[in-house]
Amino acid sequence: MKSLPVPPRFSTARRPANRRERHRTETRARLYRAALDLFAERGFMETTVEDITEAADVGKGTFFNYFPTKEHVLAAYGAERVARVEQALEEAKESTRPVHEVIRDLAADSAGQSKEHPALLRAIYAAHASCAPVRVELQKRMRVARRALARLLALAQERGEMRRDVSTSDLAHIVQIALMGTCMVWALQPDASLRKTSLDLWDLMWPSLAQPAAASRPEKLRA
Amino acid sequence: MKSLPVPPRFSTARRPANRRERHRTETRARLYRAALDLFAERGFMETTVEDITEAADVGKGTFFNYFPTKEHVLAAYGAERVARVEQALEEAKESTRPVHEVIRDLAADSAGQSKEHPALLRAIYAAHASCAPVRVELQKRMRVARRALARLLALAQERGEMRRDVSTSDLAHIVQIALMGTCMVWALQPDASLRKTSLDLWDLMWPSLAQPAAASRPEKLRA
Repeated sequence: MKSLPVPPRFSTARRPANRRERHRTETRARLYRAALDLFAERGFMETTVEDITEAADVGKGTFFNYFPTKEHVLAAYGAERVARVEQALEEAKESTRPVHEVIRDLAADSAGQSKEHPALLRAIYAAHASCAPVRVELQKRMRVARRALARLLALAQERGEMRRDVSTSDLAHIVQIALMGTCMVWALQPDASLRKTSLDLWDLMWPSLAQPAAASRPEKLRA
Repeated sequence: MKSLPVPPRFSTARRPANRRERHRTETRARLYRAALDLFAERGFMETTVEDITEAADVGKGTFFNYFPTKEHVLAAYGAERVARVEQALEEAKESTRPVHEVIRDLAADSAGQSKEHPALLRAIYAAHASCAPVRVELQKRMRVARRALARLLALAQERGEMRRDVSTSDLAHIVQIALMGTCMVWALQPDASLRKTSLDLWDLMWPSLAQPAAASRPEKLRA
């Protein structure tokens, strides 16, 4: 079983202050990775906390020092995706790079860490489809990500890249659903390139939103 | 539990030739409807053939005269969706109505019979996510529907409604994934209008594909 890549926030590149803290970070990362691997392999419902602690080679009780429930592992995974959208917003605010290019990068990366792992995405989807409390958490995260996406679109409007006669919150809703849906369908049928499909989709949508002149004189608009 | 609407092909409006045939059609429709209601209520995996025959008020063995397996009920449901795309193609071929309007109707109707039933869609998607043979059948149906959609787009090109410098098969892939994905995400978060979101999505994509002049002189192009 191939291991999932370690998400950046658990990476050991940014060394925590002391040995104890470092140990905690590493244990959490090991549990997280073991859990995602098992979800992909046998499904979210079919994986027990004991399976996870065994695979991570820690005592059973240790799990609960890091995640109150198995569902919290899914929440951590979702939080990574939300953080990615919020990061993009911060990046766009502080840079003169066209906002629509930042959104395009988000589209390319919409499947995040799991782009090599359709089985993980399927397990996650099945867990959401089958379990109402898991779905409630997803809806909360989607709201936060949608708000950040709406702010990105508003920034594109302020900078004259985008039409002002469209509602950024309506648009954020459509873009989020379309990109997230693309990941989900791809996971059921992972033969085509997810990255390419997501980019193609954004590239079809963006011209409807761009200011008519944006394509021909981008420097002027960003001046 | 609210009953699902009877799909058109099982409707009693088109009377079969004789009493025996009529009885068969009605029994199949009853089994089909009972199965979908139960999938929505308790999930695909959790529903047994016996649950279905009991709800449909027929003997247990009767089920197998109509559906070789429980999975074949899902296939029948999927076949309805494929038939809808093929119908749209026939309709477009025989009419002078702009092809992109026919595709737009398809987008509006992408969730089909189940637009009132996110629980059914969730059960169906969970079954696909969890069960490889079910997924293989979905992939086959998606290919057939995608081919019909590509032919629709080619027709739009032939009639001068659409740019000719895009691949209709690539495009059919993107459009199919985006619309299907929209249904999937909506089922997890059924607060917004699925129909509106699907239409908004198509309306964002279409201008990238339309001939620049199509909007301003449609009659001339269709002459």
